[in-house]
Amino acid sequence: MSIPIFIITGVSGSGKTTIGQMLATHLACPFADADAFHPPENISKMSVGIALTDADRAGWLLALNQYIRQQKNGLVLACSALKQTYRDQLGQGVDEDSLHWIHLYGEMDLVRRRMVERKVHFMPESLLVSQFNTWEKPDSGLLIPISQTPEEILRQIISTMALPTQWGVVGLGVMGLNLARNFARRGFALSLYNRRLAGTEEKVAEKAVAQYPELQEAQAFESLPDFVQSLARPRKILLMVNAGTAVDQVFEALIPHLTLGDIVMDGGNSHYEDTQRRQAEAARHGLFFLGVGVSGGESGALNGPAIMCGGDAQAYAQVATGLETIAAKDTGGQACAALIGPGGAGHFVKMAHNGIEYAEMQLLAEVYSALRWDLGYTPDEVADTLAHWAEDGLQSYLLEITIAILRHREGSDWLLDKISDKAAHKGTGSWASIAASELGAPLTMMTEALFARFVAALRDNRQAMAAAYVTPHHQVVLDQQDLKQAYQLARWINHHQGFQFIQLASEQHDWQVNLSELARIWTNGCIIRSELMQQAREYLAESLDLLLHPGLRNAVTTFWPSLQRTVSALSYSSRAYPCLMSALAALNGSTTANAAAHLIQAQRDYFGAHLYERVDDPSGKKYHTHWI
Amino acid sequence: MSIPIFIITGVSGSGKTTIGQMLATHLACPFADADAFHPPENISKMSVGIALTDADRAGWLLALNQYIRQQKNGLVLACSALKQTYRDQLGQGVDEDSLHWIHLYGEMDLVRRRMVERKVHFMPESLLVSQFNTWEKPDSGLLIPISQTPEEILRQIISTMALPTQWGVVGLGVMGLNLARNFARRGFALSLYNRRLAGTEEKVAEKAVAQYPELQEAQAFESLPDFVQSLARPRKILLMVNAGTAVDQVFEALIPHLTLGDIVMDGGNSHYEDTQRRQAEAARHGLFFLGVGVSGGESGALNGPAIMCGGDAQAYAQVATGLETIAAKDTGGQACAALIGPGGAGHFVKMAHNGIEYAEMQLLAEVYSALRWDLGYTPDEVADTLAHWAEDGLQSYLLEITIAILRHREGSDWLLDKISDKAAHKGTGSWASIAASELGAPLTMMTEALFARFVAALRDNRQAMAAAYVTPHHQVVLDQQDLKQAYQLARWINHHQGFQFIQLASEQHDWQVNLSELARIWTNGCIIRSELMQQAREYLAESLDLLLHPGLRNAVTTFWPSLQRTVSALSYSSRAYPCLMSALAALNGSTTANAAAHLIQAQRDYFGAHLYERVDDPSGKKYHTHWI
Repeated sequence: MSIPIFIITGVSGSGKTTIGQMLATHLACPFADADAFHPPENISKMSVGIALTDADRAGWLLALNQYIRQQKNGLVLACSALKQTYRDQLGQGVDEDSLHWIHLYGEMDLVRRRMVERKVHFMPESLLVSQFNTWEKPDSGLLIPISQTPEEILRQIISTMALPTQWGVVGLGVMGLNLARNFARRGFALSLYNRRLAGTEEKVAEKAVAQYPELQEAQAFESLPDFVQSLARPRKILLMVNAGTAVDQVFEALIPHLTLGDIVMDGGNSHYEDTQRRQAEAARHGLFFLGVGVSGGESGALNGPAIMCGGDAQAYAQVATGLETIAAKDTGGQACAALIGPGGAGHFVKMAHNGIEYAEMQLLAEVYSALRWDLGYTPDEVADTLAHWAEDGLQSYLLEITIAILRHREGSDWLLDKISDKAAHKGTGSWASIAASELGAPLTMMTEALFARFVAALRDNRQAMAAAYVTPHHQVVLDQQDLKQAYQLARWINHHQGFQFIQLASEQHDWQVNLSELARIWTNGCIIRSELMQQAREYLAESLDLLLHPGLRNAVTTFWPSLQRTVSALSYSSRAYPCLMSALAALNGSTTANAAAHLIQAQRDYFGAHLYERVDDPSGKKYHTHWI
Repeated sequence: MSIPIFIITGVSGSGKTTIGQMLATHLACPFADADAFHPPENISKMSVGIALTDADRAGWLLALNQYIRQQKNGLVLACSALKQTYRDQLGQGVDEDSLHWIHLYGEMDLVRRRMVERKVHFMPESLLVSQFNTWEKPDSGLLIPISQTPEEILRQIISTMALPTQWGVVGLGVMGLNLARNFARRGFALSLYNRRLAGTEEKVAEKAVAQYPELQEAQAFESLPDFVQSLARPRKILLMVNAGTAVDQVFEALIPHLTLGDIVMDGGNSHYEDTQRRQAEAARHGLFFLGVGVSGGESGALNGPAIMCGGDAQAYAQVATGLETIAAKDTGGQACAALIGPGGAGHFVKMAHNGIEYAEMQLLAEVYSALRWDLGYTPDEVADTLAHWAEDGLQSYLLEITIAILRHREGSDWLLDKISDKAAHKGTGSWASIAASELGAPLTMMTEALFARFVAALRDNRQAMAAAYVTPHHQVVLDQQDLKQAYQLARWINHHQGFQFIQLASEQHDWQVNLSELARIWTNGCIIRSELMQQAREYLAESLDLLLHPGLRNAVTTFWPSLQRTVSALSYSSRAYPCLMSALAALNGSTTANAAAHLIQAQRDYFGAHLYERVDDPSGKKYHTHWI
């Protein structure tokens, strides 16, 4: 292939430099601005508003032509080149096949507006009219209207000239497809790949391109080598395939086609230890592998998810623009996407996110259960109550959808009552509990939530037990306000446990996770976004331990008796409240300076000679008693 | 080495056959009974009480001598050989080095008693006097008094003649040492090995042999090859080293010295998946690897532990006598040791045992906490209360040691109050929770107990939290009888969860674990032995689900309101009661036919399109709703 030279032309203010730099970055080739080649006398003229003559331009064009012909690695040159004669001079002696003209044009009003916005440039706006008068519409090359965003202009260039694309997405399931549409809507030139499985998955990428207008410029592939070849280097490939062996299979299949410095991202719910293993494998091939936690479900993927990335910082720098562009934005407009830390940090915090989500969902189920079955509300009344709570500082995405669910009708019935309670769980739901057990982190609430799903899944057993037993059931006397405050406090305890868990992991793996920044990312786009998370972001900036932040002191102290009364009252219910009860036990346990655990230490020493420490010996020395 | 011939002599009734067969089994060589070589006329004579003459014996002795000289694989021959001339005839032409004489002798009264006990033998007791008159005390060979047990006689033979030993123990920490002493006390000939670590572990085996009289005949080694060589084949080697890499290291070091069919047992708390990996490795070398769960602490190891074995049934058959001899015995005198199932079944149930133990310990800590801090009892009063409970059907080993701990004084203070509550946990404690999370088993109680230890371990954090907060504390109004019944019910729920967990694993791995048999093994020797376990053994024989057994129906129904009142009352305590609360939630949850989990299913479908089943469609078809 001949060495490509791109010359971007247009009047001053048309965006030549911006587009030229973007194109050069994308193609990883040098960029040059023709303005830098003007001799000082030309610059002086222009800065005082005197138009250049053709004679003024002759030496300049000659210098540029010589410069172009010396390039060995390609070039993107931004140059006004308003007349055909200038363009001819620029291209003199350059191989026709390698010379690509891109002409930016727009209405004078639009350009004038942009000129005013630009503050440091030596050409005053007064020259604009002269530029438009001078401009000769070119009869070859690519003519691009500048009324689009720079991203759209770049994508149009890439697409029309069949240049290498910017991002590749592998796997077009609901999440992969929606992320691809999100990228496309933000102006990225995409390559899309989906495997071919005869009968079930055929021409998936091609169909997506045909179906969604925003994908019409994307390239569709069923050949992995062709897909890889279509991407600009370093390649940015986002895997959206099932966690587990599928990721390994795709990654292994990709490796032979990739080249040094290419970046593979796994956007699925992979286990963070698998991600770390794959990162080591990638490094052996001179590649990068980033573990990218993506939260927000279908809708988040399309409209802006929260993105938690883990891996090499330099690799992240290359993909940051893309990921941060498609991510949700926080209240300050900053992207809900960041590098959380090295290694598996991204997938770890995504796992913690899902654990927090489990407990948040279970807490809502318990609040609903108490209101409906212990206090006797209808689903609509429960929804109304929760809607009041949302207005009163408890807003969250999960609360919002719970209200919508409670109000959803099927004919005159509540749809909810048609739904089986045989709750499901994916393997990933258990990972946080497993990691907590390994790390020594007391994740009681999310584990009770996980086990509540297990109990729900054992529906046959529950039916048999329900047939065998009549649960003792008393009137539950519970104040709605107490329940609300119990729920609020339980949520804080859940978040406290979740962030404590991440902090313990971060210390153990030396990830240096910034908890406040992580909470910021979780303020939008993800399933656990909420007003509480906004506060958590502030508190965690000042205290690694949420419950130790003075800002929470008052709420905890006020809500604690409500949690006690709620648990006490619900003890007489025939229904299960594992998360609320666990929240109370967790709070009491973590505020007990001297616990009954000294008995456990004595028992362990008694039967297993496991030794114990003494309260009157702060040295930590271990003691053993001959108990018998 | 010449082919060894062992001739065991002694009057009829001295135990020649018994000892001879044991020795032949031990040495894996043929056994022969000289009586079988008598011609019919000799047998007729003896059966009517006529003593044989030397002439009668001549042909018989000749035949025996010829038989002995034909043996190529060694021989153990049981033969009265009362006179020196008979003995000379037997040994004629046999290489002196290979001929070993073992003479059993004892008082006539003792032998007569044994004769009477034996029912099927052709020689009437009347010949006994003639035998004693005929007997000439030998002046060479090994003379062994028969006043000992057969096992002790065998060990004496092995030890005196420096024959290969019966069992090898690797690792003489507290558990290994005590198991070795247990084996030795029951008459097993042992080889003991402990690694040499300059400065810290030197001559450990030698010192053990010197220190403990029961080990004085054991062989001590610091060379692994010599240790292996000292053992009879198939070798029975019990590893008592730290779980984890130490097991792999020792096993790898052993492999080159072992021969086909040798059996390595891992008696440590290894993870069952590691055991399965090692079993596969062993099989590649034609060896056997058994995962042996041992419970009972130091004292159990010495006096009789509960032993749960997992692995190959034929290999277990070879070590069953040894393991069952050293194990605790149930109320019916049967050994608390068995093959639980193939693969990692033994170590899995040991892990489940420890999980149940965690929750049992935590429950006791909570009962103690309630009595002491919420009801204001002194430790002595708590001990008295628990002692009453023990008499009233709640007896258990852990309750027993708790009472002893509560009464233990240091000077005039309770020792308990000097013990730090910084509870410790080994990695193994978390394995049950991890496995439960993987399997889908709701192990809430033991996981709350695990997390309670994590909270206890985070002592610095608790101190900071205790300084920051004043826990709301109300008078707890709690009836002691309610607490007792709550404790009883909570224990049943804990055991229910534990056995359900094992059943789920057994189904998944196709282990065919017999839950009732497992409960039988746990009725003695192990840490969780209790009266409850005796009942569980009966119930599990009839129902895989403890709580569904009709025998428990009444207790559960009666105790349930007590558990409700207890949890309700303790909700106002400043202290944490995670296990009692979790027990109530678990019971309620598992008896709720239609749970609030339908909301969770709706939420999952709402944000993740995870689909749900409908109550009005038993086909299990999945539905999705477009919620917005």
